[in-house]
Amino acid sequence: MSEPKQERAVKTREAILHAAAEVFDEYGYSGASISKIMERAGVTQGGMYFHFKSKKSLAHAVIASQQEFVQFPAGEPGLQRLVDLTFHLARALQTNVLVRASVRLSVEQGEMGLRDDTPYREWVEQLYVHLCAARERGELLPDVDEEEFAKVLVGAYSGTQLYSNISTGREDLMERVAMLWHYLLPGLAPAHVRAKVRVGPQEEGLAA
Amino acid sequence: MSEPKQERAVKTREAILHAAAEVFDEYGYSGASISKIMERAGVTQGGMYFHFKSKKSLAHAVIASQQEFVQFPAGEPGLQRLVDLTFHLARALQTNVLVRASVRLSVEQGEMGLRDDTPYREWVEQLYVHLCAARERGELLPDVDEEEFAKVLVGAYSGTQLYSNISTGREDLMERVAMLWHYLLPGLAPAHVRAKVRVGPQEEGLAA
Repeated sequence: MSEPKQERAVKTREAILHAAAEVFDEYGYSGASISKIMERAGVTQGGMYFHFKSKKSLAHAVIASQQEFVQFPAGEPGLQRLVDLTFHLARALQTNVLVRASVRLSVEQGEMGLRDDTPYREWVEQLYVHLCAARERGELLPDVDEEEFAKVLVGAYSGTQLYSNISTGREDLMERVAMLWHYLLPGLAPAHVRAKVRVGPQEEGLAA
Repeated sequence: MSEPKQERAVKTREAILHAAAEVFDEYGYSGASISKIMERAGVTQGGMYFHFKSKKSLAHAVIASQQEFVQFPAGEPGLQRLVDLTFHLARALQTNVLVRASVRLSVEQGEMGLRDDTPYREWVEQLYVHLCAARERGELLPDVDEEEFAKVLVGAYSGTQLYSNISTGREDLMERVAMLWHYLLPGLAPAHVRAKVRVGPQEEGLAA
């Protein structure tokens, strides 16, 4: 295959994934259809079937692309960065339809007969890196197991955003994430470290 | 209406609810149908429509009955009881199809166009009672807000059981709930109280 052809294929795949995320966010899994997604992506049936054979494989790919959909600002690894990531993700859930669709499908995957913990494991891996950096910087309590805490945080965070979504359409998600940290930090970091950690969104112009 | 007629109506409603929970647990919301539920419950169309007009209203009722489906053993209110409840619920999720269906529908309710936080709020209310008892017994740290912690715990617990379900079909749920408490307790209770709290299932013959 020539280089431009490959590039085109990559772009088409990306366009399909984005369109699928939009349609899944709007209609849910059951209400979405391949034809709606083709129309939204502006691709032919041939283009679609070259990349994805079914609605289920599309949903699978949207779930698996969760990490690509969230663009984190650069920053120094460590405890502050770990906390910042959770608020950045909260903002992404409030504002980015692709992230929202991917999380919705991950949570509602029982409805499509899937059981795929890839998105959860990817978050665990990402948070684990920051916990290891925090450990090296002396920011963690001695009895914290970095991998264990990463799993606890991913589970706790998933439910926090779910509850916030059902209660307020994620309007109060920032407050809920801050509350979660209020009760998790004493089990994670010593008092002198906690005193310096900013718990709230870091982006400009946003209130906690 | 005579007394026996009322009693019969209550029993029919209960039978329908239980059958609906079983069918929703097995097929999910989209795959369930009123006729499957009628057959399972052994009720006539008239009996069904006297109580429930649609699949959606049935799902709504199954979600709202979550508290009835979990039978907690008696115990003294307080911090130990709060911890015990979370393990008891974990066991119920592993073994009781009605609880599982209700929780599944609560989590996947986006798929049916619902947004009902009743089951979450009912858990918050129940846990709040135990947190108030714990406060009276001097078991909580001064800066703990009982209602806030109840909300944090319900959110964190929901996600923990969801992640466990997707990863292992809830086989590792007990370990995950224990891990969650390991990191939440230092933000909730002073060291001398934590030292006396048993974190694990209390039922006989069950390993943590």
